[in-house]
Parts: sequence; structure tokens; C-alpha cells
Amino acid sequence: MKIKKLNLVVKKIFKKYGLNLTDAKTCTDALINAELVGSPSHGLSRLKMYCDRISKKVINPRAKVKIKKISQSIAHVDGNNSIGFVAADIAIKTAISNAKKTGIGLVAVKNSGHYGLSGYYAEQAVKKNLMVLVFTNAPPAVAPHGALKSLFGTNPICFGTPTGSKVPFILDTSISMINRGKIRVAAREGEKIPEGVALDKFGKPTTNPKKALEGVQLPIAGFRGSGLAWMVDILSGVLTGGNHAGRVKDPFTDFSGPQNIGHLFFVMKPNLFVGNSFNKRIKDNIKTIKKLPKIKGVKEILYPGQSKYNRYKDNLKKEIKITKNVLEDLNSLIR
Amino acid sequence: MKIKKLNLVVKKIFKKYGLNLTDAKTCTDALINAELVGSPSHGLSRLKMYCDRISKKVINPRAKVKIKKISQSIAHVDGNNSIGFVAADIAIKTAISNAKKTGIGLVAVKNSGHYGLSGYYAEQAVKKNLMVLVFTNAPPAVAPHGALKSLFGTNPICFGTPTGSKVPFILDTSISMINRGKIRVAAREGEKIPEGVALDKFGKPTTNPKKALEGVQLPIAGFRGSGLAWMVDILSGVLTGGNHAGRVKDPFTDFSGPQNIGHLFFVMKPNLFVGNSFNKRIKDNIKTIKKLPKIKGVKEILYPGQSKYNRYKDNLKKEIKITKNVLEDLNSLIR
Repeated sequence: MKIKKLNLVVKKIFKKYGLNLTDAKTCTDALINAELVGSPSHGLSRLKMYCDRISKKVINPRAKVKIKKISQSIAHVDGNNSIGFVAADIAIKTAISNAKKTGIGLVAVKNSGHYGLSGYYAEQAVKKNLMVLVFTNAPPAVAPHGALKSLFGTNPICFGTPTGSKVPFILDTSISMINRGKIRVAAREGEKIPEGVALDKFGKPTTNPKKALEGVQLPIAGFRGSGLAWMVDILSGVLTGGNHAGRVKDPFTDFSGPQNIGHLFFVMKPNLFVGNSFNKRIKDNIKTIKKLPKIKGVKEILYPGQSKYNRYKDNLKKEIKITKNVLEDLNSLIR
Repeated sequence: MKIKKLNLVVKKIFKKYGLNLTDAKTCTDALINAELVGSPSHGLSRLKMYCDRISKKVINPRAKVKIKKISQSIAHVDGNNSIGFVAADIAIKTAISNAKKTGIGLVAVKNSGHYGLSGYYAEQAVKKNLMVLVFTNAPPAVAPHGALKSLFGTNPICFGTPTGSKVPFILDTSISMINRGKIRVAAREGEKIPEGVALDKFGKPTTNPKKALEGVQLPIAGFRGSGLAWMVDILSGVLTGGNHAGRVKDPFTDFSGPQNIGHLFFVMKPNLFVGNSFNKRIKDNIKTIKKLPKIKGVKEILYPGQSKYNRYKDNLKKEIKITKNVLEDLNSLIR
């Protein structure tokens, strides 16, 4: 489907479900961006879920997001149970504005929901020539080291920085071996998942995505990945006033109440310490690393975010490929 | 050797090498702490290296560390090529003081050197009831994803938070499969290293620590670990004014100049957003996770820093075990 048409359709759906035009636009842009950067697991495959949660009154389509100013640098956002996109959009804009004024902006969010890709918010800061760290928690998917039950979300760690070029450095890495959204897409589309990334509910390795969703995803690097996931749960949940310790509900299967996800955005000016030489320094950093001898078969050493940017540029020229399941969703939701 | 005696001996050595009493004490405390927490790779096995670097005039024993105030929250520390302990100690104390005043403290350090364990500085903040992130870069040890040559250091990610108990939560995880210091100790003591953590200089897997030191250490989780290492290089090197992109010299083998390592300390009040309920929230978080069903053979789910704290408490009651190599170092240095 053409991007422009898809944009109109999705916006219309969100408006039908009670969002005002501004919020509908925010949510639509985020979902379509996920498709364009090649992360359909965080794109249109989630649209029906958001609408279902609105219908079942566990997302507030008319949320009044509140910003509490704590200092010139720090703010606390209460999402009022909005779709995550809406609260997160206000929060990152506040963090950017604070960083522009004082050098640093720290904004915590509570009472939010799933907000798509962390990298999407990091990009907003980097486009304003700022450095950024983004943390969010998520429903249980990964077992803490030593435990037999999932509790941590895939809790991404996300970092972005200007690069002195048009292509931002955006690291957006979940601490699970595989993105939960990818398992979900595999389950929807009837595909297998790789070996070694998940266990079924009995603790046995599986390549069946449905069994993996009922079971446990494995963290990267054992106790190290488990520790990083725990850090993210504390930074985005315990610190912010959001849910934590495994209490974020699965948005697809648990309609017993709002998710109350927490997010944390930390934005800073990259020239705080080295002034105008920052651009030269980051360019030199990237250039030096790209010049290293390469493993056989590797043409170019890519920095995080580079291939995503290339996919985005390519996809902008094309129509967005819609799976059969998503098309059914669109047709049923717009009715 | 008894802790008290060892403390006197090491302090005397640092003073002999030109440090004033305050700086000698700072360095001695950091090295002995590494022994007590069970990280001898960052302890006395490095003493001779520091002294050698002073002798060869690539560490300044009489460094005048400068603090440049950027705002009430932000400062830039110029280590003046001190031993890393000295610059880092001043920097973390500045970050703590700024956070106490404004809620957040961000302090960058340039012209520093190897500062031991990141967790040691995180602990200082947590003891003052603050949350903390610590980043530092290090000499080349890990190859960027796709490259055939080491460039990133083991670039630890370190996070600490108060827990509402005496035992702090301190995650201090390098992004390499194994700590470089551990390989170095194995090489000194003639032991093997585990499989799958390093390649020799020809790109072949090795369990020989000497071959591993000449070769490449593997990052955790492939491109994810490589991305995290790159993030740490930017945060602690490019941003701070420190060396980066593989230019931090190996302190043991490269005496051609100072290391100019960069560090970044970010400290914040844990009650910024949730007020006095923070203690209740973090206790609940830890308690909930500890209650999960456990894998067979696991008695307790430990949070990061817990076993280190237990080792520290145990070791405080004992003498510190000195290896033959370290004893030789101590004897030759004190002469």
C-alpha cells in the first residue's frame, strides 16, 4: 500500500477509536516509521492490539498527559494511560527542550504503554543534534539468571548520537537473544524461530514461536544480560513510578488493566565538554573503526542505525508491504 | 598478609614513587578494595604497572587535577595524567555533590588512566543513597563486529542503586566474554582460560591466555555487544575529551605516552520521581524477583553486587592472599 494512503487509513482508524487528530498523527507516524525502518514487529501488526485495548478500556484514547516540572533539567510525565506513543512523544520533546536550555534533560514517564521502538525517540533527539539514552520496560519475557520463570521484559538499551553526517548512530538493542515482536510475527506468519533463543514452558529449547511465547526467552550473555535487564527494570520502572518486577501486562493477551509502563529519557548536548570539536571527534571515531581490516565477506563495518537508515531511505521510495493478517486487521478496524 | 600491614606497604610504595599522602591513600584503598571484593585482576597485580609508568614518566605522580564547573549539575575534570584512581575519585565526589544539590550530577573526565573497578566508584554514590551510571574506555581488546582487529576496550557498563538494605545493587559488566584482567592473571599464573572467549592473532579460538592477549577478545552477543562497546567508547572517550577509537594505550606494554582515558559519571537521586516510596519500591522489586521458582541447584537468585559484597565481608576478616608474583613486586618496589 502507498505510504500516503496507509497513513490516512491508520490515522482514520485511530480517530475512529477516539484519539484526537494530534495524537492520531503521533501514533500513525510511529507505526509507519517502524514499517519503514524494517521493524514490522513494532509496526502495523500492533495496530489491532492498540484498538482492542481502547475498546476494552485499558488504554485511554483521550488521555490528558501531565508534565510535572522538577527543575530546569528534570521533569516527570504522567501518561494518564495513553497509548505509549503519545506520552513518550511529549516526554522526549520535553527532554530535548530541557537539554537545549541546560545541557541535560532527564524525563521519566509513568502510566504509559508500549511505545514502539526506542530508537524512534532517540532519533528525534539526534536530529536536534543531541546525544540520548532511552530505557523502557516491557512485559515478562526473559528469566532472571537462576530463575525458571520469565519476569524481565526484553528491556532495550538505546543510545543515540549525532555523527557529523545525515546518518545517526542509533543503538537499540534488547537484552534478549531475540526481539519478542519477531517471535510474535513468526507465530502470526507460521514461521520458525532460530535455535538457542528461547525455551518452552517446560524449560526445553524450542524453535516453535508459539511455544516460545508461552515459555522463556533467553537473555544475551547469561548473568550479564540478566543484570542489564534488571538495570533497565529499575531505571524505567522502579525509578519512574511505572510498573516493574514483572507486573507490566502483556498488551496482546492481558486486558485486566492498563500496562503502566515506565520510560526514562536522558538527553545531553554532545558539545558539553569538548565544544565544537565534537563533530570532528565523532567523525574521526567512526572513520577509524570503518578502516579496520574486515572479516572475509564483510564489505563495510556498519555502525548501529546505519543499515536501518538505509532501509528507511529505500522503503520511502516504495509501497509498504502489507501481510495478509495486517490487511485483515485494517479492513476490520476501519469498518 | 594482614590488610593493615598491606595497606601501609602499598601506601609507602606510592609515596616513594612521588604521590602525596592523600593520593597514595586513594590509590592504596582502591587496589586493596579490588582484592577484598575478589577481583585481584584489578588489584595488587597492577601495582608494579602503575609504578613503572610513573618511572617512565607516562603517569604524573604529582598531578594537579582540575575541575571545570559547567553548571550546578555538570563538571569537566582534567586528570592531568594522574593515576586513574586520583582523577576518578575527585570526579565521582563532584558528581555526588552535584546530585545532592540539583538531583543530578554529570561529570566527565579526560587525561586520566586506568582507574580499577567501575563498581568501586558506583559504590561511593550508592553509599550516599544515590543511583549511578559509570562508563570508562580501555585499551583495545575486542574487535568491532565485522572487523578482524581489536579496537574497543572491554568497556564496562556499570550501574548502581540503593536497595533499602546494606547490600548495594552494583552491576559492573564488561562487554567482552571475559575480563581482560582475568586473562592477564591467568597468563601470569600459568593457567588456561575458558573456551569461546578469545581468538589468537590469526583469528583462531584459543585457551592460552598469552595467545589471547596477542589476539582478540570476543564481545558478548555479537553485534549487540559490539554496539554497546561502541556506545561506551563514545560516552567515555569522544564526549569527554579522552582518547577513543582504539588509541588508549595498553598500560602494561606501551610506555610511549600517557593513556588519556576518559570516564563518565552520571549520578541521580533515586527519589526524584517517586519520593519516599523509592525504598519500598526497590525492596519490593528485589523481593519479588528473589521469590521466583529457581533452576535446579540454585539456592538464591542474587542481584548484581550481592556476592561481591559477601566476599568483601568475608575477606575483611581474613588476611589477603598474595601470589608469588605480587610478593616479588612488593619486595622489589619497596626497596
